Formats: sequence, structure tokens, C-alpha cells
Amino acid sequence: MDLLRDPDRTPDDLPAAAGHLRRVLVTGAEGLIGGIVRRHLADRYDLSALTLAPADFPSHVADIADIDAIRPAFAGVDAVVHMAGTPHVSSSWEEVLHSNIVGTRNVLEAAREAGVGCVVLASSNHAVGMYEIEAAPAIYADDDPRVIDEWAEVRPDSDYGAGKVFAEALGRMYADRFGMRVVCLRIGSVVADDDPTGASVLATAAWMPWLTDADRRARLRATWLSHRDCAELIRCALDADVAFAIVYGVSDNPRRFWSLDSAQDLLGFVPHDRAPG
Amino acid sequence: MDLLRDPDRTPDDLPAAAGHLRRVLVTGAEGLIGGIVRRHLADRYDLSALTLAPADFPSHVADIADIDAIRPAFAGVDAVVHMAGTPHVSSSWEEVLHSNIVGTRNVLEAAREAGVGCVVLASSNHAVGMYEIEAAPAIYADDDPRVIDEWAEVRPDSDYGAGKVFAEALGRMYADRFGMRVVCLRIGSVVADDDPTGASVLATAAWMPWLTDADRRARLRATWLSHRDCAELIRCALDADVAFAIVYGVSDNPRRFWSLDSAQDLLGFVPHDRAPG
Repeated sequence: MDLLRDPDRTPDDLPAAAGHLRRVLVTGAEGLIGGIVRRHLADRYDLSALTLAPADFPSHVADIADIDAIRPAFAGVDAVVHMAGTPHVSSSWEEVLHSNIVGTRNVLEAAREAGVGCVVLASSNHAVGMYEIEAAPAIYADDDPRVIDEWAEVRPDSDYGAGKVFAEALGRMYADRFGMRVVCLRIGSVVADDDPTGASVLATAAWMPWLTDADRRARLRATWLSHRDCAELIRCALDADVAFAIVYGVSDNPRRFWSLDSAQDLLGFVPHDRAPG
Repeated sequence: MDLLRDPDRTPDDLPAAAGHLRRVLVTGAEGLIGGIVRRHLADRYDLSALTLAPADFPSHVADIADIDAIRPAFAGVDAVVHMAGTPHVSSSWEEVLHSNIVGTRNVLEAAREAGVGCVVLASSNHAVGMYEIEAAPAIYADDDPRVIDEWAEVRPDSDYGAGKVFAEALGRMYADRFGMRVVCLRIGSVVADDDPTGASVLATAAWMPWLTDADRRARLRATWLSHRDCAELIRCALDADVAFAIVYGVSDNPRRFWSLDSAQDLLGFVPHDRAPG
């Protein structure tokens, strides 16, 4: 097979073997998941940080929409955990365009230019969110057999979701063309207090205003991803021997309706936490 | 099922029944396919035009990257044939971002705002171009049984291809959320002289520099879409009773390696022309 690849890169340039201490740049390091990575994975990797504003820890400060400004952060880096961008499904088109479309392209391109071998991207279930919208709230029941997996045809529910489809597709292109390992994580509900029954329930699924409070409680228990499982998922993605993957990240919740088959088969991810039924 | 839809739109707002004379706006009307639409479909529809620069026919002149500038062109329109944007797989990221990502979003959004019921979009085989790159040139042989269909996992070969994945996904979102009919056409090789054995051969597949001239001749005979078939495909897309579709458009070429099943089943498209074997 003749693969169209960057002539400057060969398979020999692939990253160090899984498990080696590696220099990992975290974009959006000031965010909720960025903080989880800093707290849980600092012993395993040599972490550096990219943040939009000065933080209370050392970081490169730059807007990911400005590729010239972010380039220095990628020098000497082995892998990138790309969590920067707007995390809100209700984000305006302008926010999605700036932070998630242009931003993700710039992160992939800066990584390629710097010879970074691996990028782990924040994607989202909103890339296929219409399935849930059509199936809610029945799909939140613990005896509902329906599961959405990574092979479902994309059906974004929002500009935000369409931006995530773009990020996954562009990630695939960087994997196919440039031999970069790219793992796209459709990250579940990571909440600040790490409590699937806590105060975050009322902010759950604001894009489905017809849901009752009971529906919202069921939804968060279905989609919850604990901080510990989130960190483990990112570790698995960094260490996995896989050229490209799209996987769901969710704890082992009885009401779960996203498949964990790819996360387990491709990355070896096994969740340790479980929301109440 | 509770579908998340625009409260101002209902299924009753769907466009007039197929076959009725309808007001159709053509974006990129000055381009190759825009010209084909103007020549072949002016008797069937009441056509209007949006062009980037003044043309030798009446048109709204505006850059599709400027939503305020294009809005007036959508007033009173029943359907849009969106062909504006860069057609080159080698386009820079900046061109793709401006013309194909922002431009297509603006066309869909301006159409939604104006209550337009149907948008036919130019997509591209480059949304999944890596399959061809891996299989070329063997896949161009007339006895090669491999066919790529619309259900293949997206594997763009370029920024251009990733932009087309975004356009398809966003089109799906506008169909799902706003009840707009959206048909995405992965348009084959439409060449100015309409000759699958003509001078365009040497410009074919420039993104695969390792192909021989014989390979390029075979490729164009495989992927050719005649002007007449292109116009018929667009007519079928405008008239079809389908909520959303992604289809290939290619003539009935013996070397064809893209599926026409969806074009035929969903749109009723039957190609009339056939490149030499």
C-alpha cells in the first residue's frame, strides 16, 4: 500500500514505547479535566501546561486559536493531552469556531510540526447527540438495553457537536497521513464535586429542557465519569499501542448507555468507579 | 420521540412537493458546476445566483464567509444548491476554513433563518479519500471488485476532506434539529470539457504524485461525472423525498469504485453516461 505520508516522518519516528516516562503537554490545563490530569498523572509523566491565562502553576500562556503563539509549548514534547476549548454544548458558533475548530487544528498542526508522536483529544458524545435526544429519558433506565457505540453514524446535536465531528475527522487525517497516534475521547460527565448524585444534577442536560429533575438525576448517574476513571482513561490513551481510536469514557454505571468496548479493547481501559443505580 | 427542534419550525413548513417549480438559489453559480446548473436546470426551477464577484448573469455578489452579506440572497428561496467554496483538495487550511467551513455554516444558517426547506451541498469523496489512496491504482481496474460507499468510516485525506466531513455533519444537524432537507453530494470528477479521456487527465489526482499517466487516465474514467449526469443528480437531490442523505455522484463507468446505491435508492438517480472502459 502506498500511504500518502509526510516525507519527513517515518514509522520509526513513532513515540517511545508505552509506559516510558514521557513529556506530556496538557492544553486547557486550568480546566476541570486539566486539573484532574495534573493531580493524578504528574507522577507518571513529565507534564507541562498550556493555558489561556496565567495560572497558579507554571504554564505556557497562549490562545490555541493563535498557532504562532502556541508553537513554543510543543518543543520537545512526546505527547499532547488536548483539553482546551469550550466544553459547553450551548456554545455559540463563534466560540466553537475559534476554540474548538481552529484551536484543535492548530494543536494538531503544531504537534505535527514539532514531531510530537501522540495527541489525545477531547471529543464528545455530542458528535452523535441526536440519538440520545431521541431516546431520552427512556434510555437512562438501568434496564434499557440500547447502547450507542463509536460506529454509529455521526449525528451532532449542536454546533459544538459538529465541531467535535470535525476534530475526530481531522485527528484521523493526522493519524493516517503523518503517522501520529491520535486517540479521541468522547468524555462522559465529569463534575467538579465528583459526585454523581450531587448538586451538578440540576445543571445536567440543559440542552433538553423537557427533562424532569428525576430524568436529570438518572442521566448523570448514566453518564458520570469519575475523576479517577477519567485520569485512567487518559493514561490508557497515552500508553496504548493504537494508531487511531475513538472511544467513550464513562464509569461502570448500571445506567450507562455508551459502549466501553473500544475503550477496553483498544486502550485497555477498565473503569473502577460506579454510580448508584 | 422528543426531537429537539426549532420551536418556530414544524414539519408543515417542509418545502413544496417534489416536481413543483421552485425558487432555487445557486451559490458558486460562476463555477463549473454552477454553470452546469444554470445551463441544464433553468427550465425546471426559478434560479437565482450568489457569486463571489460580479458575473455576466444576474447575481447577488457576496463572500459566503460573511453571513450578513449573504442573507439577502436567501429571502423567498425554496431551496439552495450550495456549490460555493474551494474545490481543490490541495487548498490551504486558511482557504478551507474561510470558504468551506465558515462558508458552509453560513449558508446553512442563512437558509434556516430564511425558512429555506432544502439545501443540496457539495461534499466530496475526499471525506474518505484515504481508502482510495491506500487502494490506488489497483482500484481503478475495471475488474477490481472493491467499492466505497457512504457508510465507510470517515477518513479524510486532507484539510479539504476534513472540511467536507464537517459540512456533512453540520448538514445532518440542520436536518435533525430544524427539519431542513439536506442532501450531501460526494461529486465525482466533473471536467470542463466533459471528456473523460481529454486533457483533464493530466491534472487528475495531483495529490497522488506517484501515479503514472496511465493510472491517471484510468482514474478519470473511473470517477468521471458527466455534465448531464451532474445536473440530473442535483435535480434528483432537489426533488427527493428524503430528510437527509449522503450520496456519491458518478457516471455509469465500468471502472467506477464508488457506490451508487444510495443515490439510486434515496434520490432515484440513474446515470445516463458512461466513460470508456
